[in-house]
Amino acid sequence: MTKPPLEAIPSFVAALGDYEPLARERMTEGAWAYISGGAGDEWTLRENIAAFARLPLRQRVLRDLSGATTRVSLLGMDLTAPILLAPVAFQKLAHPDGELATVIAAGALDTAMVASTQASTPIEDIAAHARAPLWFQLYIQPDRDFTVDLVRRAEAAGYRALVVTVDAPVNGLRNREQRAGFALPDGVSAVNLHGMRMLPPPSPEMLLFGAPLLENAPAWADIEWLRGLTRLPILLKGITDPEDARRAIAAGMDGIIVSNHGGRSLDGLPATIELLPGIVEAVAAAVPVLLDGGIRRGSDILRALAFGASAVLIGRPYVYGLAAAGAPGVAHVIRILRAELELAMALSGFRDIASIDRSALAAQGRGITP
Amino acid sequence: MTKPPLEAIPSFVAALGDYEPLARERMTEGAWAYISGGAGDEWTLRENIAAFARLPLRQRVLRDLSGATTRVSLLGMDLTAPILLAPVAFQKLAHPDGELATVIAAGALDTAMVASTQASTPIEDIAAHARAPLWFQLYIQPDRDFTVDLVRRAEAAGYRALVVTVDAPVNGLRNREQRAGFALPDGVSAVNLHGMRMLPPPSPEMLLFGAPLLENAPAWADIEWLRGLTRLPILLKGITDPEDARRAIAAGMDGIIVSNHGGRSLDGLPATIELLPGIVEAVAAAVPVLLDGGIRRGSDILRALAFGASAVLIGRPYVYGLAAAGAPGVAHVIRILRAELELAMALSGFRDIASIDRSALAAQGRGITP
Amino acid sequence: MTKPPLEAIPSFVAALGDYEPLARERMTEGAWAYISGGAGDEWTLRENIAAFARLPLRQRVLRDLSGATTRVSLLGMDLTAPILLAPVAFQKLAHPDGELATVIAAGALDTAMVASTQASTPIEDIAAHARAPLWFQLYIQPDRDFTVDLVRRAEAAGYRALVVTVDAPVNGLRNREQRAGFALPDGVSAVNLHGMRMLPPPSPEMLLFGAPLLENAPAWADIEWLRGLTRLPILLKGITDPEDARRAIAAGMDGIIVSNHGGRSLDGLPATIELLPGIVEAVAAAVPVLLDGGIRRGSDILRALAFGASAVLIGRPYVYGLAAAGAPGVAHVIRILRAELELAMALSGFRDIASIDRSALAAQGRGITP
Amino acid sequence: MTKPPLEAIPSFVAALGDYEPLARERMTEGAWAYISGGAGDEWTLRENIAAFARLPLRQRVLRDLSGATTRVSLLGMDLTAPILLAPVAFQKLAHPDGELATVIAAGALDTAMVASTQASTPIEDIAAHARAPLWFQLYIQPDRDFTVDLVRRAEAAGYRALVVTVDAPVNGLRNREQRAGFALPDGVSAVNLHGMRMLPPPSPEMLLFGAPLLENAPAWADIEWLRGLTRLPILLKGITDPEDARRAIAAGMDGIIVSNHGGRSLDGLPATIELLPGIVEAVAAAVPVLLDGGIRRGSDILRALAFGASAVLIGRPYVYGLAAAGAPGVAHVIRILRAELELAMALSGFRDIASIDRSALAAQGRGITP
Repeated sequence: MTKPPLEAIPSFVAALGDYEPLARERMTEGAWAYISGGAGDEWTLRENIAAFARLPLRQRVLRDLSGATTRVSLLGMDLTAPILLAPVAFQKLAHPDGELATVIAAGALDTAMVASTQASTPIEDIAAHARAPLWFQLYIQPDRDFTVDLVRRAEAAGYRALVVTVDAPVNGLRNREQRAGFALPDGVSAVNLHGMRMLPPPSPEMLLFGAPLLENAPAWADIEWLRGLTRLPILLKGITDPEDARRAIAAGMDGIIVSNHGGRSLDGLPATIELLPGIVEAVAAAVPVLLDGGIRRGSDILRALAFGASAVLIGRPYVYGLAAAGAPGVAHVIRILRAELELAMALSGFRDIASIDRSALAAQGRGITP
Repeated sequence: MTKPPLEAIPSFVAALGDYEPLARERMTEGAWAYISGGAGDEWTLRENIAAFARLPLRQRVLRDLSGATTRVSLLGMDLTAPILLAPVAFQKLAHPDGELATVIAAGALDTAMVASTQASTPIEDIAAHARAPLWFQLYIQPDRDFTVDLVRRAEAAGYRALVVTVDAPVNGLRNREQRAGFALPDGVSAVNLHGMRMLPPPSPEMLLFGAPLLENAPAWADIEWLRGLTRLPILLKGITDPEDARRAIAAGMDGIIVSNHGGRSLDGLPATIELLPGIVEAVAAAVPVLLDGGIRRGSDILRALAFGASAVLIGRPYVYGLAAAGAPGVAHVIRILRAELELAMALSGFRDIASIDRSALAAQGRGITP
Repeated sequence: MTKPPLEAIPSFVAALGDYEPLARERMTEGAWAYISGGAGDEWTLRENIAAFARLPLRQRVLRDLSGATTRVSLLGMDLTAPILLAPVAFQKLAHPDGELATVIAAGALDTAMVASTQASTPIEDIAAHARAPLWFQLYIQPDRDFTVDLVRRAEAAGYRALVVTVDAPVNGLRNREQRAGFALPDGVSAVNLHGMRMLPPPSPEMLLFGAPLLENAPAWADIEWLRGLTRLPILLKGITDPEDARRAIAAGMDGIIVSNHGGRSLDGLPATIELLPGIVEAVAAAVPVLLDGGIRRGSDILRALAFGASAVLIGRPYVYGLAAAGAPGVAHVIRILRAELELAMALSGFRDIASIDRSALAAQGRGITP
Repeated sequence: MTKPPLEAIPSFVAALGDYEPLARERMTEGAWAYISGGAGDEWTLRENIAAFARLPLRQRVLRDLSGATTRVSLLGMDLTAPILLAPVAFQKLAHPDGELATVIAAGALDTAMVASTQASTPIEDIAAHARAPLWFQLYIQPDRDFTVDLVRRAEAAGYRALVVTVDAPVNGLRNREQRAGFALPDGVSAVNLHGMRMLPPPSPEMLLFGAPLLENAPAWADIEWLRGLTRLPILLKGITDPEDARRAIAAGMDGIIVSNHGGRSLDGLPATIELLPGIVEAVAAAVPVLLDGGIRRGSDILRALAFGASAVLIGRPYVYGLAAAGAPGVAHVIRILRAELELAMALSGFRDIASIDRSALAAQGRGITP
């Protein structure tokens, strides 16, 4: 039996990591494996977090900190802090209120949210509860007509940017999920994909190669097709290579999200914070570069900004807050992270986001190929 | 008491590593020590696996993956995937069906198998069940006449290549085996060596040096002698040094297998994946270079191919499948690994084996001396 | 229930580390979290200690060691050894005798002590018991008039130097403390700050930025103001950056204490021993450079001196001695450390403090950016 | 209660490490702490062993190994293998037969032994049982006349070389011993030092500096004095620095033993295998260089020889064999190590000791400053 969500947040919850055991007790084994697990041996999953600790910080003292602020502008939107909620599928696995709890918490703290194509709540319902910028995460589906419909629905509902996930033409090798025998429970489904034309099932002999799914996987031409389809800003999520970043810009993309899909796609990819410097250099300030993967502390955000990220996204941490305590849990996670970012900036001597650069990192830092 | 083999493969078996505990429960302590153990402190045994994790991968997105394939041609043979079953002695220690189960599974998945000189099944019986290319692993025996007989039997039975193991003039220091007091049980023996002339036993005073075994150990002259003896392709297995690789080519060898005998010979040798680049450079494409040791994931195969291997061999993983579930276990191991290879290629953007090169590896990779 | 202080020091107490478990048993959970804990994930806390082990030593043999001594002169004061007691707040949390036990032990071993602004004993009482040099640690308070009073009281009581802590404009993120729900118990308070004008409390909506505390945090101008206020030598504690060190000298400071606040301020700062060489180079012998953080052995002192420190401060170790056994515990900690320093010098061939330089470190040392 | 020595060596004893738990069960807690412990945090003790694993080996195959041998000549003495028994004090702590069991085992396997000044058996009795070369380890005592007597006794008893330990002017900081409250039990004492003039005890106030022991510690002048005193070959044991090695040669020494006193003197010294290359380079073949510290495998000997050592000494391993099973245990330890050395040579392709050079080490080796 899983425990019910908490009615009040316990006083010992001081950091994002404190939500993890509280969430685990409140999710089924399968849902936990699905949300918390990564691909293969989960090397990338661990590395996303571990790599931040290899980047020691630099401290400057006695600087004037009056009037300090974390406000930023991103794709024409004003954000209270450079923190967004990453797209996470099926949030009803974590809490009965699912995406609605998340969007309400995001609104309360004036934080942008990226809703998932695989949300367990209609994207129009999510939008109806939004009080802060809302973006829509899109998988280009084998059914291209349905994909057009999704874009039109997002536009109509007031979503302000598209985040196209490009690193998962097929699902990663999620052994933990497989071992737990995870399947969506009754009442949780990809409600936004109802009515979509499905591919024929693969023959029993077939592995991946030659299967319809892979034959219909999106390619650069599909990105160009999508670019012609909408005037919303488009960001590509799942870019980890400088050459791909350059190609994205050439294809008219408005932003890059450096992501290894939270360690859920190709196990063995480096931590996103190690990939970031190369992407930032290739992008050369043409468009904003965001990062997701492994952010657990305000000081991690400082490190990402130091390497040139414009903002970061968090995924699992807010879903753990959601599972533990619903909307108040999500709001608390955001609030902790913003407070930690302010503290890290104050102690390292930065008064605003724009002034954060590599000087925030200690010379003792090792292990990063710029 | 050991458990009987599984009648069906449990649904929680998702990766090669999942077979290891299942196998252990089904083997005697001695057999387990013999199969799973390595030499000395087992540093090389661990390092074979650990070194792959020091080689992060590179991902390219949105590439056209239609018509993707893992097919390769090797020494004139067409293979469904660049994966072979390495020679492993005495497979009846793992399962009563021994090598016959293995060759049947290999045939079902169109996978090449290398039968061991020390097979517990007559090599003619193995060949009678083969439906995919079959190679023969040979130790050059002190009894050179018997060695000639072995080659003639392999030729007659339809084996298509010889794999000569050169890194074990004497057995490695297998402490785990010694501690377990391992001895072959009744009904398991080197049936293919029956009738061979044995060396006189060493005197009780004698250690290794001066003993007949070492005095009769094969040397390069024996390789040249063997080369003159047969028209089958010959590969040397156990090459870890570039100079030895060059000498093998000069001696007319048709291929090199970079192997440290699965960590069972000289403890302290580097991981094979660390040795591979130097060998590939020395060989300069004159002959195919294969690798065995530590392959546990499709992404490990991708790494080996990235460094120039033409194919890889797996040993312990399929023997664990055999111990757990007989032929279906072996087949499942091969199928998992092929599916993982396809997935790793798809996610990193490769459509065929020939196009895999060092660009498959991330710049963040460390710890390899090329 | 916590145990009472020890009446005698057990014979198995041989090193500073042996006091840690003895102290823990004698402190409340909250006090233990407050004293022993660090900021955030406590990376810096661990690293302060771990970094010393990455600096192997060099040994010279058969040198003449007659007349060896650890005496040093620092800011015109003669010290028996280059070891000072760092400022630690609220020492009555560790033992009812608090700071008085510490100053008595320091006097017995002729060791300088730095009393904290947040001492739980009036600074005049501490001074009344002093038999060795006494320094005063100062936080520049938002109430600048009260700050002037503190300086005047310290001067009047005979304190011989001011140590201004500059790395904590706000408290660090001390999660361990928060989780333990630490609050000062009855009878323990910042007695030296009674009567100080407090800032208005922040609004409930507000995080750190914009709050009065940060708006009134001390800056370089305040240091210059303080410099004009007193003729006592002033050292800045919490300098970790070479540029800040140069600025401190330009502001007329008499010494630098390289400190990351014992890992209690910004988690992610490098170990102080890794920061030391860069500061020493920037200071170029203009003023003495001291180090605190992670000193647990006499050989750690040798390492710090080798990199150019004039002396070191210890914090938690003597507080653990205090908690375990009161004044005798503090005295024993100092005595162990001095004996270890003498032994490390004898075995590495140094006869006096002045001759210790980088030649004390082995060429095998790694991981230090000088 | 400790267990009695084994009457027969169990069949599961396959490596030196297998003797350690057997010895521990047969020694008092204090004796175990004394023999097995190291100085301080035991970093050097662990590092002595760990450093060998950072030196991967190189394998050459198919070389002619007929007539292979481990014989060497050292200071005019023929040795069956480049392995000596290091001086270890008070061997009756391990087994009632003490040094006599050791010398009998050494003789049985034609292995040189270095008897300790602090032997618990008269050096004449040890010599009376010797059947292989015997050396004498000497501490230059504050009582120089007694030191002369010791040398004369060693000469008279047939000892063939002097090993002067120079890295312990005072005892190391052996916390483990202190914590265990170790003291020599009745019937175990430094019998060869009976009658020696002792120094006055230090005053209770005094630490190390200024104490008579340190004031009378041996210096280079004493080495020169000793050189004039005897025609026996003299080796200095405890040299870890190239400059000290050069000075030893200038002082007429006949050999160098690179040793950090088994991690019992100055904790923080690098592993001896890391120090060896620098010493070998400084010595430039003028005299033989030996190594002790951390040898647990035949392959470790190969590594030491690869870096230029002429031979190695083992300490704790044979004492563990002694504690477990008396003379047969010591003999078994020697035999295992010789067999392992032969095997390591055979597998890496070396036929004799003289041909072993750096080519025995893999290019992948890391962490050594040559």
